[in-house]
Amino acid sequence: MRVPKVGVIGAGQLARMMIGPAADLGVNIEVFAASSDDSAALISAFMVGDFKKIEDLMTFAEGCDVVTFEHELVPQSLIHDMESRGVCVYPSGDSFLYSQDKLAMREKIAQLGLLNPLYEKYEGGSTGLKFPLVAKVPRGGYDGRGVWIISDQAQLSELPTPLLLEEKLNFTREISVMVARSRSGETKTWSPTWTEQCDGICKITVTPVPDFSDDLAEEVSRIAIKIADGVGLVGVMAVELFHIDDRFVVNELALRPHNSGHWTIEGAVTSQFEQHLRAILDLPLGDTKRISDWAVMGNILGGSQPEIFAQYEHMMARSPRLKFHHYRKEIKEGRKIGHVLLLGWDCDFHRLVDEVEFAQNYLSGGPHG
Amino acid sequence: MRVPKVGVIGAGQLARMMIGPAADLGVNIEVFAASSDDSAALISAFMVGDFKKIEDLMTFAEGCDVVTFEHELVPQSLIHDMESRGVCVYPSGDSFLYSQDKLAMREKIAQLGLLNPLYEKYEGGSTGLKFPLVAKVPRGGYDGRGVWIISDQAQLSELPTPLLLEEKLNFTREISVMVARSRSGETKTWSPTWTEQCDGICKITVTPVPDFSDDLAEEVSRIAIKIADGVGLVGVMAVELFHIDDRFVVNELALRPHNSGHWTIEGAVTSQFEQHLRAILDLPLGDTKRISDWAVMGNILGGSQPEIFAQYEHMMARSPRLKFHHYRKEIKEGRKIGHVLLLGWDCDFHRLVDEVEFAQNYLSGGPHG
Repeated sequence: MRVPKVGVIGAGQLARMMIGPAADLGVNIEVFAASSDDSAALISAFMVGDFKKIEDLMTFAEGCDVVTFEHELVPQSLIHDMESRGVCVYPSGDSFLYSQDKLAMREKIAQLGLLNPLYEKYEGGSTGLKFPLVAKVPRGGYDGRGVWIISDQAQLSELPTPLLLEEKLNFTREISVMVARSRSGETKTWSPTWTEQCDGICKITVTPVPDFSDDLAEEVSRIAIKIADGVGLVGVMAVELFHIDDRFVVNELALRPHNSGHWTIEGAVTSQFEQHLRAILDLPLGDTKRISDWAVMGNILGGSQPEIFAQYEHMMARSPRLKFHHYRKEIKEGRKIGHVLLLGWDCDFHRLVDEVEFAQNYLSGGPHG
Repeated sequence: MRVPKVGVIGAGQLARMMIGPAADLGVNIEVFAASSDDSAALISAFMVGDFKKIEDLMTFAEGCDVVTFEHELVPQSLIHDMESRGVCVYPSGDSFLYSQDKLAMREKIAQLGLLNPLYEKYEGGSTGLKFPLVAKVPRGGYDGRGVWIISDQAQLSELPTPLLLEEKLNFTREISVMVARSRSGETKTWSPTWTEQCDGICKITVTPVPDFSDDLAEEVSRIAIKIADGVGLVGVMAVELFHIDDRFVVNELALRPHNSGHWTIEGAVTSQFEQHLRAILDLPLGDTKRISDWAVMGNILGGSQPEIFAQYEHMMARSPRLKFHHYRKEIKEGRKIGHVLLLGWDCDFHRLVDEVEFAQNYLSGGPHG
């Protein structure tokens, strides 16, 4: 029986959540792991290797019809090397650059006529931007790592260069929109999501964005599709935006399934993970209809609880509608070890947020634990 | 990290569809397969063995916190043997008898004061029932195998005994209701389902049952819970009923996830597969709310197409809302090789049935293929 095989570089929770949809579609999947106890390797065919070694990457790619990513860490030069050796990589290296390099992303957004914060590439000396400002490592930062709020020149001078400096915006809120684009150029977006951040890590998402008009949702969708087409996306991408009055300023791009799209697993007809597979396999994209009035997602961060399974009994008894996703990662303080999702109909979303926060605290050993 | 391990005896599509929910909950799962290319073994930890050998079963059970079934084929004596050696088996052997032995089931239903067709145990000679009648092998039949419509004594005399003979009922339609019961005795039911059969195999299910009052749905739910309690169910069970005027006559019981409950994967807040795991692990049961107005499921039977993946492109382009489940079984004429599911809101269910039938024919190489 001829079915395609997808290779996913990375074996964290994003790869883990691709396994189910791959099974449903009947496609083969293998993950490229750092260790046999990586989140996705626990439930999938896997190869252990070093993603900075072209030999390991090429061994992995052999027999894969498509290779894709769940993280941004594979060096650009190696992605291009794989492509030049005939490996089918999606998103392509040229596209994935905008997920890997924040400076290149800023330039692309400007070129597309979309809104950036004021920014500059900083290689030392004095800056033309006003303090306080945001300094970012152009490559390799995530979840608040490699990002600093800088209040004066002295602080700035202490950081390694090069840096991307950005004005610190006063935004109403942060929103994210997931967009998919297939090899044939078909695009689909999902309902935009409100992402509540804390210390640079997403804590809770609410979909759709509360008090958001259809016009604004359409504008956000148009922005996402413009970027998807502009970067030549193949797969799914998160477009994170600052909502300031009625303008949308691009914050970050991630050309892969993303935390802000986890609600789509239960909350949409087609999840971001299935859609990513469809897009890179050049299958027609699935319907992205939201199936409930509200979908509230909460990340579970590692805390004082040595495990989370033992807490299920009480949480499930309290919240029969709550959906659990256990990543099976070693529990470390502040690390994302799972998430919960709550759908709601005919209700106030605040009630759902309260229920999700209770579960978060309980599972991570917080105040309600 | 301490998480429980579930062992599933059998590695067909039912075990396959338990893998995803097990991953979400973070529990370990292993399937007992006849061959390494069994449907579930392709995507799971597995052991190859013979379910008629107690040594193989005990090797498999070692390290499992709970052992469960996806088929009825393990001999009763071996289930009891496992239990007496300390293996935690759910449903228990005493309960599972009603899934394995149609005569025992009939007696139990009568004892619970619920409706049976007229029936008798037949061991040769003449029968007190009128022809035509239905003859069933008491143990081991499924999907129309081991079931015959018998029009006269001569035909009856040709069959091997013992048999369960049943009057042939003129029913309005066949319906099925899924019920879950946990080790703590908590029960939940889902919306009843209309199952359209053809040659003894379920072709299409429609949920909820069209033109079915809330009172009837409640009555069906009460019947299912009465049986669940009566047989000491732990896990999920399908209760198949003949709907005759406004009476419900029990047709079959299956104490495991069932084809008529596949719609719950996308169509309910908690699927039958997740619920089965929750029930046997003694976790609180999840909400069974239906999330759409209609859920229409269609089995894909093997036909003239040598594969079904190649057909995805056209089917997905035609039906962006259709969900696919590819069992990755070798394609044989008439064999269930997958299913599709379509959710609908604010529409006539006939339109959904048409769309599902088109997909069925296309994928199995039928008239629209």
